[in-house]
Amino acid sequence: MTNLLQIRKRNIGRSPDDLYFRGGKKADSVRLRLIDFNGDILKEDTVETVQEVLALRTRNSVTWLNVDGIHDPEVMDEIAKGFELDRLILADVMNTEARPKVQEHSNCVFVSIRMLQHNDATDQVEVENLSIVLTRSTLISFQERAGDVFEPIRERIRAQKKRIRNSGTDYLAFALLDIVVDNYILVTSMLGEKIDDLEDTLLSEPTQSVIDRINTYKSELNLLRKNINPAKEMIQSLSKLESDLIEDSTDIFLKELENNINQATESANIQREILSDQLTIYHTTISSKLNDIMKFLTVFSVIFIPLSFIAGIYGTNFDVLPELHYRYSYYIMLCAMGVVAISMLIYFKRKKWL
Amino acid sequence: MTNLLQIRKRNIGRSPDDLYFRGGKKADSVRLRLIDFNGDILKEDTVETVQEVLALRTRNSVTWLNVDGIHDPEVMDEIAKGFELDRLILADVMNTEARPKVQEHSNCVFVSIRMLQHNDATDQVEVENLSIVLTRSTLISFQERAGDVFEPIRERIRAQKKRIRNSGTDYLAFALLDIVVDNYILVTSMLGEKIDDLEDTLLSEPTQSVIDRINTYKSELNLLRKNINPAKEMIQSLSKLESDLIEDSTDIFLKELENNINQATESANIQREILSDQLTIYHTTISSKLNDIMKFLTVFSVIFIPLSFIAGIYGTNFDVLPELHYRYSYYIMLCAMGVVAISMLIYFKRKKWL
Amino acid sequence: MTNLLQIRKRNIGRSPDDLYFRGGKKADSVRLRLIDFNGDILKEDTVETVQEVLALRTRNSVTWLNVDGIHDPEVMDEIAKGFELDRLILADVMNTEARPKVQEHSNCVFVSIRMLQHNDATDQVEVENLSIVLTRSTLISFQERAGDVFEPIRERIRAQKKRIRNSGTDYLAFALLDIVVDNYILVTSMLGEKIDDLEDTLLSEPTQSVIDRINTYKSELNLLRKNINPAKEMIQSLSKLESDLIEDSTDIFLKELENNINQATESANIQREILSDQLTIYHTTISSKLNDIMKFLTVFSVIFIPLSFIAGIYGTNFDVLPELHYRYSYYIMLCAMGVVAISMLIYFKRKKWL
Amino acid sequence: MTNLLQIRKRNIGRSPDDLYFRGGKKADSVRLRLIDFNGDILKEDTVETVQEVLALRTRNSVTWLNVDGIHDPEVMDEIAKGFELDRLILADVMNTEARPKVQEHSNCVFVSIRMLQHNDATDQVEVENLSIVLTRSTLISFQERAGDVFEPIRERIRAQKKRIRNSGTDYLAFALLDIVVDNYILVTSMLGEKIDDLEDTLLSEPTQSVIDRINTYKSELNLLRKNINPAKEMIQSLSKLESDLIEDSTDIFLKELENNINQATESANIQREILSDQLTIYHTTISSKLNDIMKFLTVFSVIFIPLSFIAGIYGTNFDVLPELHYRYSYYIMLCAMGVVAISMLIYFKRKKWL
Amino acid sequence: MTNLLQIRKRNIGRSPDDLYFRGGKKADSVRLRLIDFNGDILKEDTVETVQEVLALRTRNSVTWLNVDGIHDPEVMDEIAKGFELDRLILADVMNTEARPKVQEHSNCVFVSIRMLQHNDATDQVEVENLSIVLTRSTLISFQERAGDVFEPIRERIRAQKKRIRNSGTDYLAFALLDIVVDNYILVTSMLGEKIDDLEDTLLSEPTQSVIDRINTYKSELNLLRKNINPAKEMIQSLSKLESDLIEDSTDIFLKELENNINQATESANIQREILSDQLTIYHTTISSKLNDIMKFLTVFSVIFIPLSFIAGIYGTNFDVLPELHYRYSYYIMLCAMGVVAISMLIYFKRKKWL
Repeated sequence: MTNLLQIRKRNIGRSPDDLYFRGGKKADSVRLRLIDFNGDILKEDTVETVQEVLALRTRNSVTWLNVDGIHDPEVMDEIAKGFELDRLILADVMNTEARPKVQEHSNCVFVSIRMLQHNDATDQVEVENLSIVLTRSTLISFQERAGDVFEPIRERIRAQKKRIRNSGTDYLAFALLDIVVDNYILVTSMLGEKIDDLEDTLLSEPTQSVIDRINTYKSELNLLRKNINPAKEMIQSLSKLESDLIEDSTDIFLKELENNINQATESANIQREILSDQLTIYHTTISSKLNDIMKFLTVFSVIFIPLSFIAGIYGTNFDVLPELHYRYSYYIMLCAMGVVAISMLIYFKRKKWL
Repeated sequence: MTNLLQIRKRNIGRSPDDLYFRGGKKADSVRLRLIDFNGDILKEDTVETVQEVLALRTRNSVTWLNVDGIHDPEVMDEIAKGFELDRLILADVMNTEARPKVQEHSNCVFVSIRMLQHNDATDQVEVENLSIVLTRSTLISFQERAGDVFEPIRERIRAQKKRIRNSGTDYLAFALLDIVVDNYILVTSMLGEKIDDLEDTLLSEPTQSVIDRINTYKSELNLLRKNINPAKEMIQSLSKLESDLIEDSTDIFLKELENNINQATESANIQREILSDQLTIYHTTISSKLNDIMKFLTVFSVIFIPLSFIAGIYGTNFDVLPELHYRYSYYIMLCAMGVVAISMLIYFKRKKWL
Repeated sequence: MTNLLQIRKRNIGRSPDDLYFRGGKKADSVRLRLIDFNGDILKEDTVETVQEVLALRTRNSVTWLNVDGIHDPEVMDEIAKGFELDRLILADVMNTEARPKVQEHSNCVFVSIRMLQHNDATDQVEVENLSIVLTRSTLISFQERAGDVFEPIRERIRAQKKRIRNSGTDYLAFALLDIVVDNYILVTSMLGEKIDDLEDTLLSEPTQSVIDRINTYKSELNLLRKNINPAKEMIQSLSKLESDLIEDSTDIFLKELENNINQATESANIQREILSDQLTIYHTTISSKLNDIMKFLTVFSVIFIPLSFIAGIYGTNFDVLPELHYRYSYYIMLCAMGVVAISMLIYFKRKKWL
Repeated sequence: MTNLLQIRKRNIGRSPDDLYFRGGKKADSVRLRLIDFNGDILKEDTVETVQEVLALRTRNSVTWLNVDGIHDPEVMDEIAKGFELDRLILADVMNTEARPKVQEHSNCVFVSIRMLQHNDATDQVEVENLSIVLTRSTLISFQERAGDVFEPIRERIRAQKKRIRNSGTDYLAFALLDIVVDNYILVTSMLGEKIDDLEDTLLSEPTQSVIDRINTYKSELNLLRKNINPAKEMIQSLSKLESDLIEDSTDIFLKELENNINQATESANIQREILSDQLTIYHTTISSKLNDIMKFLTVFSVIFIPLSFIAGIYGTNFDVLPELHYRYSYYIMLCAMGVVAISMLIYFKRKKWL
Repeated sequence: MTNLLQIRKRNIGRSPDDLYFRGGKKADSVRLRLIDFNGDILKEDTVETVQEVLALRTRNSVTWLNVDGIHDPEVMDEIAKGFELDRLILADVMNTEARPKVQEHSNCVFVSIRMLQHNDATDQVEVENLSIVLTRSTLISFQERAGDVFEPIRERIRAQKKRIRNSGTDYLAFALLDIVVDNYILVTSMLGEKIDDLEDTLLSEPTQSVIDRINTYKSELNLLRKNINPAKEMIQSLSKLESDLIEDSTDIFLKELENNINQATESANIQREILSDQLTIYHTTISSKLNDIMKFLTVFSVIFIPLSFIAGIYGTNFDVLPELHYRYSYYIMLCAMGVVAISMLIYFKRKKWL
């Protein structure tokens, strides 16, 4: 049994508001980054403690606290106390294995989703949990490790683009989820392109390596689907949620989000069908090649069988075997063999066996 | 990574109301065509700027502005301002990869759908995005490139056919979508006919080229389904939409549209089953042909095996091998071989192996 | 491209209330048959013009006008005017390719369905479109060609059976649809019987003709399913329809109709599974037969291989080959061969290869 | 065409309230059995005519009339008149091919369902139609032939068990349906057990008889599913039915019934998957056995091929063939053959082909 | 027929409130364990009779009675009387084969579910039925045998953890179900890990034992799915239940439970797909290995066929066969054979048959 299973086993029966970290640790320390903004002001800082955050918040502004690293129960506890959040929420944040979900609490909305990001260095898709806690004036986002996926949003905030600077935390939450979903579409498209590339080599060189690649892509696709499908459910619940914290003007963006994630799942489904078709094509090609070989070789053998038989007859040592003594017997035999071979070839050609 | 993927990657995190073109450019310039009509009047013109359009509109008329080419953010911006449309809508128009959808805005309904058209020259199905913005008195349709799919509608308007001349923008929108769906049915039927043609060659000449055609049709069908299925969803939402902009009298036409698109999807599904059946038939035929060959050849070999064995025995050089010295041994051996061969043939015939 | 496709292509973009005939013409002339009845009176006539029909109608009676032949736009136009029907309805009647549907109009209910009828002469299922327009006092039924499917209903009307003579147009419509659905069940059962008959020959004589019959039945079944499934949807909509024209007392009959058509679709689905199972059984039987052959023949060859090898050794011409000169060598060799052959047979028997 | 089909064909277009028997006759005469009971009294009798039944009924009691044999239109007509039932209901009772259904009438609820019963003598599942007509004080159950499936209920009534003696007709109806569903579970479990038994023989002795049994069980399972699935639908409708005739206290029993029938369908579905898995396992085992044989035999042949070739060379009659004249040539040849054979064996072993 | 089937057969037609034990007996005696607690007090005891329990209950406390062993109708009867429960509920408790369900009664909520627990000793998953009866102040849990799955909850109660000590019976019920679902996730993950381990051996050593393990895992997975899927339905009904006995604050925990069980079913579904993929990979690998062997061996045979034929020709005994008498004939023949063999090898190499 692996470590993970043993941890899981030990934790069965724990109270749901226990703050303990479930999952593999991906960061060494916790980093708190704060952006506080509205149409007019913009403060950006990296802080040390939750207390600092509380001090830095401006009245009438949107405060975005980004937490990189979710393994430290003490920080979580401080956050729970500082922002008056139910401990259940923080316990959920620390559980990286939970399914994506939306939960409405009395003073906040809790959203969790998996981020999929293509690591260009390793050519692998990396999975990370993102939790978002949305209150009236503050949005806290929790990531498992430091990373700059959300840099474009920070850019938009800094650039004083109107909509995000003048909207509330709900629009900010949408912007974060939008980037996550855009990455879904990107990783799905990247896989799709690899799968399309396979198509050509499939017919020309159906080697074992092709089948290995099909299997690899299949399990990569399973990874995507396993993460995207529950996210789709979550976003559907979110766009149906009737919460005071989500303004009517944000509804249209959530609908858009639904549309986008549908695009990702549809494209994943299509790729799945394509992979399964490719597998069929592979097998068809392989077996048709083998059949050609077997057919050729069998026909080849069959032509020689009667020839060898004839030679065998004249290899017998009977005292009385008149043909042996005619002068042209040997040449007649050779001619006969040629006739037999050629007529068999013609027969096979006609039957389209060659 | 292809260009498309790189563009997509660069655009992750953009604000949803940013006007930038997503997709491959299909037209060089933007062309604005205007038809302004009601029961009495009819004006038709190609204009240069959005301002001209605004000036040409008549009171109490339906104004149809057709925009060919959607890659120019400036034109889009002008349209947004001229018709007081949310910039989000125009951003959607410029995104040719978005899923077909219906969106209700305060002053308009936005509809987008993929047009499928069979290009007779290349024998290919061409895909193009169509966006329709429907306001009380104006309908703006956006196409990716110039083309005259909608010519029959212009003809109907010119011909002073009553219903379209006396109806509002909603009926015009229906007419446009109706043509799109009619084209769905057409391209599906055309593919269906090709697939039916395959049926005959399938049994008579099951060559590799047949399997290639099946695979080609399969991917063509996937293209159709990928575009038609989301359109079906969209049209269902549209016919459920309760908007002031869509009059009750148009409802029956939208129902009709739903019926038509159902016909297209059903026919695509049936073709899919047929293709999959054809693949099975192909494999059955091929493998049954191969089996016949192998069976024939094996039986053939087996008949000669004991014959050659007999000849082999009398080819041995033992000092004492009495049969060699009888006068008719050779002829007896030949007869014995004939008997063996014939009885084996009879046996195989009886067992239905031949 | 076939004629049908070209017609379809030409008609893209036509106004939905254009009266033009879509489909293959199946009748030469239009025939109008009229039955006018209530509990007391009964008039039956074949008329020439729509005007005659209008004149013949009695007050307080049910008028059933049956139109055989739907290709003539003029007759359709007359009917539209005579009975004050929306031209859309007649356009739908003339479109034999439309999906079965129910449409509620202000003064009538429009129902269309495919009739399937087994032609005993050709042993083929014939498909024909049936449209029914239901007003308060008149029912118009449109068939593509003359035929007497509805003769039993006429008999029931003539026989003064109480329910049909005392009921309204809605019960008459039910009676017509009921016959159509009864025919669905009949043709499905007839196919089902053929499929069951196949079962026996399948195991005893799995020849190519069996597979051809399976494929034929499969496409016949597809034809049925393609027509029955949309009819099921239509009847479900009909029984949910809340129209003044359909009395509460008719609801129970419509439910019955739903039940019956469900029976037809279920039975079609089961037959589909059976066919697919039969295909599997066929392949299993064939491949197991082939395996038996190959196994037998291979074993046969293998037994002779060492025997021929032994004979080959004693066919060599070495100067010193002592065995050749012993007196009983030849007989010993024959015995040795027998021993080898028999022990191999025993070995194969034990391994269950024979 | 079979008789059944011809009967069906003749009956197309009949009025739905015609009392004629559809199906195969399973009983010679009609038997009426009456139980009349409440908490205090209990009368049990076999009666001759419907009039007797009406006379025997007690005020304030539950009257259960069980009718064995449904082929006699006269008896049906008497029942319709005696209990003031719509003739439609009795027509439905006589139609043994109709789907299970629930129908609410003004004065009664009509329920029909298929009974499945395992006949221990023939080891076959027998199918029989059960119809139940439920009025305020009377329950009439119709069976196709005499049988004592309901004996346990009579026992419960006689035993003065409280609930059934003090409940109304609705509880009695539940009790009847409960027995039917219990039998569903029983026959499904019995089949399930046979299928489980197959598992062992499948791997040890994969003979043709195994595949025949799999096919037999498959069609038995299809029979069960064909009857149980529509019954499930029917029971769901029944438990949703809001009728005065069904008291609230009975609801919980109907829910229970739903649960039980779900259990039957789930178990049937699981068995279906198991059968399909077994088929796969069978084919895998068979083909892997055949592969072993072919591999063995091919390797065997291949070893002898070069040996025979060597012997063939020294069987040639060239004047100059020096090896023939060395003293130990023959022995050297035998040794060489041994070396070739053994090294090939080693090679094949290493490649894991043996 | 097995014992179980015979018991089942005997019990058909029993009244639903009969207290008799259905299933295999798993415990010898009945054990009653009582915990009575609220924020302040905590009593824990093992009692003998139901009367003791009633005496031990405190006012304003939560009483948790755990019953190990459900086979004794007398104890069940006492419980029914002591806690004023409907006998139906206890009959359900004693039926270990019923499907998981939620039932609302006037004074209690009844919940039943299957517990799955991995037995580390036997490496088997054990299935046990858990029934929970939830009243305002008392929760009774019924297990089939003694076991300490719920020990962590007792620990939490003893440890005076706030939430469970201060919550009602509904939270306690959630805590019990939560442990059950956590075990679902655990057993599913453990199986998942075994399946993942298979992946490697699959490609390197595709032996029969691999296929046996795949089949074993498949049936283990079926066992899980058969138990988890109905539990999911049950939990969905529970979280939709509007009962006074379940407080609003517990709703969020039930939602969590739903999320968790969804995770279990999703993971089971994914494992099912993986197993099915593995089976395909296995067959592909096996058949590609076999193909390699057959190809190699056939090519090998084919090369020797013409060589043996040549030797055969010069083994004939014709009087006139000039080649036999040339001096270098023998060497020429050997060279010719070499040339033939090598050119065939080259040909096969080029055609990629080797």
